Amino acid sequence: MRKSVIGVMGGHQVDEPTRRAAHRLGVLIAERGWVLLSGGRNVGVMAASAAGAREARGTVIGVLPDRDASRASPDLDFAIVTGMGEARNLINVLSSDVVIACPGGAGTLSEVAFALIAEKPVILLGFDPGPSLNEYRDRGLLTEAATPEEAVEIAARFVDR
Amino acid sequence: MRKSVIGVMGGHQVDEPTRRAAHRLGVLIAERGWVLLSGGRNVGVMAASAAGAREARGTVIGVLPDRDASRASPDLDFAIVTGMGEARNLINVLSSDVVIACPGGAGTLSEVAFALIAEKPVILLGFDPGPSLNEYRDRGLLTEAATPEEAVEIAARFVDR
Amino acid sequence: MRKSVIGVMGGHQVDEPTRRAAHRLGVLIAERGWVLLSGGRNVGVMAASAAGAREARGTVIGVLPDRDASRASPDLDFAIVTGMGEARNLINVLSSDVVIACPGGAGTLSEVAFALIAEKPVILLGFDPGPSLNEYRDRGLLTEAATPEEAVEIAARFVDR
Amino acid sequence: MRKSVIGVMGGHQVDEPTRRAAHRLGVLIAERGWVLLSGGRNVGVMAASAAGAREARGTVIGVLPDRDASRASPDLDFAIVTGMGEARNLINVLSSDVVIACPGGAGTLSEVAFALIAEKPVILLGFDPGPSLNEYRDRGLLTEAATPEEAVEIAARFVDR
Repeated sequence: MRKSVIGVMGGHQVDEPTRRAAHRLGVLIAERGWVLLSGGRNVGVMAASAAGAREARGTVIGVLPDRDASRASPDLDFAIVTGMGEARNLINVLSSDVVIACPGGAGTLSEVAFALIAEKPVILLGFDPGPSLNEYRDRGLLTEAATPEEAVEIAARFVDR
Repeated sequence: MRKSVIGVMGGHQVDEPTRRAAHRLGVLIAERGWVLLSGGRNVGVMAASAAGAREARGTVIGVLPDRDASRASPDLDFAIVTGMGEARNLINVLSSDVVIACPGGAGTLSEVAFALIAEKPVILLGFDPGPSLNEYRDRGLLTEAATPEEAVEIAARFVDR
Repeated sequence: MRKSVIGVMGGHQVDEPTRRAAHRLGVLIAERGWVLLSGGRNVGVMAASAAGAREARGTVIGVLPDRDASRASPDLDFAIVTGMGEARNLINVLSSDVVIACPGGAGTLSEVAFALIAEKPVILLGFDPGPSLNEYRDRGLLTEAATPEEAVEIAARFVDR
Repeated sequence: MRKSVIGVMGGHQVDEPTRRAAHRLGVLIAERGWVLLSGGRNVGVMAASAAGAREARGTVIGVLPDRDASRASPDLDFAIVTGMGEARNLINVLSSDVVIACPGGAGTLSEVAFALIAEKPVILLGFDPGPSLNEYRDRGLLTEAATPEEAVEIAARFVDR
């Protein structure tokens, strides 16, 4: 049986508290025995969460927008090279069992949107996707966490179903 | 020289005022001599805007998520069949010179996000994409219109550049 | 009712007879009242067929692999900008009712393959896709033409069905 | 450092010798310590090579065309869910360091073509992609092997570069 996959999304340029939270998320995901999946590049939330998971001896998959892996985080175990630009954001979320959204911009927003269209649970950790997704809050697919620990607790409930 | 292309995005299931605004947008876009581009399906904002453009003798391109055109609006002049699901949302906005976002849900949100990543101007006509895109407001790429007429006026300013 | 769409595929760098045949194909497709669809770039078979269709007052759609239209043929009426590299080859054939393959290389080969997977008729005009597609010959989906005129005659039979 | 990734491509419906060769390929790839990457579905060459790699305690990644993993081989360690149909064939080869092509049809042909466009080495193991790719033979990117053992020997030469 395949391990559960947690997608961690977030910005390219982030402040230090966000970077630390993303790193912590990576650690916690690895400690649970889950696979961390992200956009794979060596910046921001992608790089920090990958580093955390790697330090905790977890497995990290990066799904890259580029045509090669030259911009990949050094902490990936596996690099999926799509050559499709932001269209790869759809793959990120379809390949995840649960998505956790850290602070980010338009890319993160597109991933939250795509995840919900595909009926994937999304846990917001400091990211506000605005009011257009409220129907998913009502249905329990879109929830909020205050800390990495809480985000992983919520993820565990979805994974265990 | 190719005609300017205006992408009109919005929900599958919309209320009557939204449907009317989308239809009016289609009429106004056609009257300007621009091409209307949308997601192409025969529902909601896509269908209403296509019908408006058709009635005003405009040209309508639909970029479909499906593997065939069986769910296309009857008012399309051209159907682009992608077979890529929501990944086609990226194509919608890359192929548009300006994007107008009518009320919608997660799909519309992803299109607004992708448009801004690609530095395309986005005009909001009753759609709120939340606070994560505020940097684009500051830069003048993300603006708001109160009516279809105003949305088309703003679009004209970008097109004329 | 939408017009029939004929996809014309072929190489980026082609010899003069191939260029002339592609141009002639464009003329003949336009004269039939069909839409010409190609990969849209300003080289080889794409550029020559677009120029032919334009000269005969036809309509030309180009589906570009790039993130913008800077490399588009000047003879396109409509540019679909995919940003997906060669993944757009799938869109080229899904959006066509019939595909005509002129001499080309690996890109053309991928388009012939994708067209047949999608059960689109493919007419070979000087292109040999090798033996792995023979099942499609047996089923009448993969045929050969000796001239642009013959290719368009065969296409007409499929379009009229 | 990430492990080398060998993409194994081939048909959905294959005869028994092909199935056995694909299984053997999977074993040999795993024994080398490489990652096996395939289209991920539970049929043909994809399933047989995944089973071989799994039996030899290797790692298997499947890149699925579907919107979920319901049709995945049970021998995958990781399922990448693309929702993009055959456009995922591009991802298969961009994510591989070397591609080995077993007997197959149009899908396999598209993968060989895409691999070569991306300058990935392709080793043919009983698959004939026809004459349109001969330039890649001349350049040493397209080679042939008579047995799984030979294919893996050739792959090793590329991987060690």
